[in-house]
Amino acid sequence: MSKKKVPGRIYLTEDQLPKAWYNMQADMPNPVAPPLNPSTHKPASGADFEAIFPKDLIEQEMTLERYIDIPDEVMKMYKLMRPSPLIRAYCLEEALGTPAHIYYKYEGNNASGSHKLNSAVPQAYYNKIAGIKKLTTETGAGQWGTALSIACGFYDMACEVYMVRVSYDQKPYRRVIMETYGGSVIPSPSPSTESGRRILREHPDSRGSLAIAIAEAVEVAAGRSDTNYALGSVLNHVLLHQTIIGLEAQKQFEIADEYPDIVIGCCGGGSNLGGIAFPFMRDKIVNHQDIRIIGVEPAACPSLTKGKLAYDFGDASGFTPLMKMYTLGHDFVPSGIHAGGLRYHGCSPIISKLHEDGLMEATSVSQSEVFAAAKLFAKHEALLPAPESSHAIAVAIQEALKCKETGEEKVILFNLSGNGYLDLAAYDNYNHGKIVDAEYTDEMLAEGLKTVPEL
Amino acid sequence: MSKKKVPGRIYLTEDQLPKAWYNMQADMPNPVAPPLNPSTHKPASGADFEAIFPKDLIEQEMTLERYIDIPDEVMKMYKLMRPSPLIRAYCLEEALGTPAHIYYKYEGNNASGSHKLNSAVPQAYYNKIAGIKKLTTETGAGQWGTALSIACGFYDMACEVYMVRVSYDQKPYRRVIMETYGGSVIPSPSPSTESGRRILREHPDSRGSLAIAIAEAVEVAAGRSDTNYALGSVLNHVLLHQTIIGLEAQKQFEIADEYPDIVIGCCGGGSNLGGIAFPFMRDKIVNHQDIRIIGVEPAACPSLTKGKLAYDFGDASGFTPLMKMYTLGHDFVPSGIHAGGLRYHGCSPIISKLHEDGLMEATSVSQSEVFAAAKLFAKHEALLPAPESSHAIAVAIQEALKCKETGEEKVILFNLSGNGYLDLAAYDNYNHGKIVDAEYTDEMLAEGLKTVPEL
Repeated sequence: MSKKKVPGRIYLTEDQLPKAWYNMQADMPNPVAPPLNPSTHKPASGADFEAIFPKDLIEQEMTLERYIDIPDEVMKMYKLMRPSPLIRAYCLEEALGTPAHIYYKYEGNNASGSHKLNSAVPQAYYNKIAGIKKLTTETGAGQWGTALSIACGFYDMACEVYMVRVSYDQKPYRRVIMETYGGSVIPSPSPSTESGRRILREHPDSRGSLAIAIAEAVEVAAGRSDTNYALGSVLNHVLLHQTIIGLEAQKQFEIADEYPDIVIGCCGGGSNLGGIAFPFMRDKIVNHQDIRIIGVEPAACPSLTKGKLAYDFGDASGFTPLMKMYTLGHDFVPSGIHAGGLRYHGCSPIISKLHEDGLMEATSVSQSEVFAAAKLFAKHEALLPAPESSHAIAVAIQEALKCKETGEEKVILFNLSGNGYLDLAAYDNYNHGKIVDAEYTDEMLAEGLKTVPEL
Repeated sequence: MSKKKVPGRIYLTEDQLPKAWYNMQADMPNPVAPPLNPSTHKPASGADFEAIFPKDLIEQEMTLERYIDIPDEVMKMYKLMRPSPLIRAYCLEEALGTPAHIYYKYEGNNASGSHKLNSAVPQAYYNKIAGIKKLTTETGAGQWGTALSIACGFYDMACEVYMVRVSYDQKPYRRVIMETYGGSVIPSPSPSTESGRRILREHPDSRGSLAIAIAEAVEVAAGRSDTNYALGSVLNHVLLHQTIIGLEAQKQFEIADEYPDIVIGCCGGGSNLGGIAFPFMRDKIVNHQDIRIIGVEPAACPSLTKGKLAYDFGDASGFTPLMKMYTLGHDFVPSGIHAGGLRYHGCSPIISKLHEDGLMEATSVSQSEVFAAAKLFAKHEALLPAPESSHAIAVAIQEALKCKETGEEKVILFNLSGNGYLDLAAYDNYNHGKIVDAEYTDEMLAEGLKTVPEL
């Protein structure tokens, strides 16, 4: 353990920005199961994705190359928001009375308010150079839609966002920020797509889900040659782009002369967790580094902790290729919890494989634990965390309190992936005792898993 | 002009944080006119402030010492948010096609969302060590009230915020964030104070003003021995604390090997402008540095550009000492523009004196100019600016476009004092063509000035 006094905030210079993303697939002990064509159930080829993705991103989805260079035009926009600080939570440590060293990587200091811009920028860029004029996407919490609107605005492209109805209603400011950057926002399920109409016929009051919104956005993109689709999580190329977080963190830990014993990220589709954890996972696999990696889910949407490892669709309508992942069933609609970004039925195939292989842990926390942790953090660290990120805070605090009992000076790193400015309606509910801890029952699991296709 | 390639974001290390604030009063060619006791009209003594301020802050208000050491306990909280970055707006420069070098100091990366925390922290601290249990204050845009709630939360003190009614209605999230940090928020004018009741009798539909909210907060603090009042702008000690912004910027310009030709800040009470400009004003006065300093006001509330230099009250009820400043009259209630933080009838006595002595310029911009500038900036710099700060952006763009005409490579610095996440209702209005450019007429001026007392 280093005895050197580490500064509270560790920045990198622009020159120290990583020049390439890290591809987890290059170092996995067992390969990710291939995606399957949704009709033939045969392994999907690049051609299966060409209707909605540009060639460069399809290549990044498939490749086993270890490092992928970041293009100059992407770097230009990255420099508007990166490197992000690695922050030692001295005041939180003091409040907890823990000997642990708590660090967080703060991704909330850009207009999108979250890490999502890390992948929105290259996705917009690769589509732009492929001649695409417009991107469609889904958004849950609103962070991904905001990020894609900002990236499309920067590269002068159009952006159409299908926003999960429950988030659209809870977060009106999210619509406004997307519109301010030129995006158009449609509550999902919507009557403007066949997927939306199907849901609305069966469930006229549907609060929506990421899977439904994905189905709508994919349907629109698949039908137009100048329009592509962009996904904010789950897929390999998205997690690839997010590794910039962990790569920076590794350089910052070198400056701090420390190394994490535990790396924590919240986990919905997995971009947040993969982004911070994969470069450390490489150390674990290749260098046998003794390090725990923990994904934290909402108790109301526990795919890694309670779901089934199986081939399932990424969307609610069965348009996407089948992916092998921990899933609650693609028709599962989680409760209207306030961490909209984590309300997804499945999980990244890479993370699913790493979890299957015992290389990481997963745990879940309730809404009220999440907001209690968020407020404690906010008071002592003078930042307002997003509810999604606060799942990671809750577990970081749990681990720090274990260290208090054992006296261990463990180094804990978590990803503070976003700020909570546009989640204040959720904080208002919590402040006034209106947060309900949604139960996830065995019946719900059984019901959801019925929709996982038999292959 | 430096030919060295300057990085996009210039950070300082924690060790490089300024250890003392700079007191403009030490170097002014002519002293600030003293405040007057509101009853006797004789120069006010320290004792006149003791009912509402602690001794340390009263001393800072009066002293002519050039540098005031920042206490360790204040530095502890400063390190949660400082140093803030100095950012070279390369992408905005490119979009404008200007040879100018545009820099901004970004103060929006803390939970309060603005520079206001720079003074909230020491004000809470000095009251804490004086044994005070609770602070009252006013807030317009909500930024100051948020900052004081956060600072009081950090030091375990209570905080009661009188929030200008128009902002309270426009910005519900501001109430929530203050409550999240433990503050209690009361829309002003309120029936809970004599000042509030007086206004409500005369104007039951009053939208409030900073001056009314100040009157309420001061009234409450003056009546209780364990309660003091904290002001977010105007006073000398507030501007003193904010000089941390300009002091950091000077160190950052040394790293960039540049020096600003123009320094721009929006100006309501003056803490934003004073904070960035005073250290440069010292260079201008003491070292005869050739530098322009520009304060930017809303056209709807133009105290520096259209007001009268006279002794006037800081609040609407005539509780506060009289201060010599540019004023529109302490009963003047500006239109409900969206830059709530700039809706104040007066201006810092120090800034007023510097303006009277010809050491700085003042200009005003309309609401629609402000939001056009804000959106242009947001698109190219991937940050969402607060409407207040966007007044400075508008003039920075004007100056950069003048450089485009003349070919001059001027170095322009402005203070991006806050982010606009909680101002999205205002952006929504602008996006949908609902921003009205409030007229400020000679009749309004004449009416307002009637309330300036005859001495």
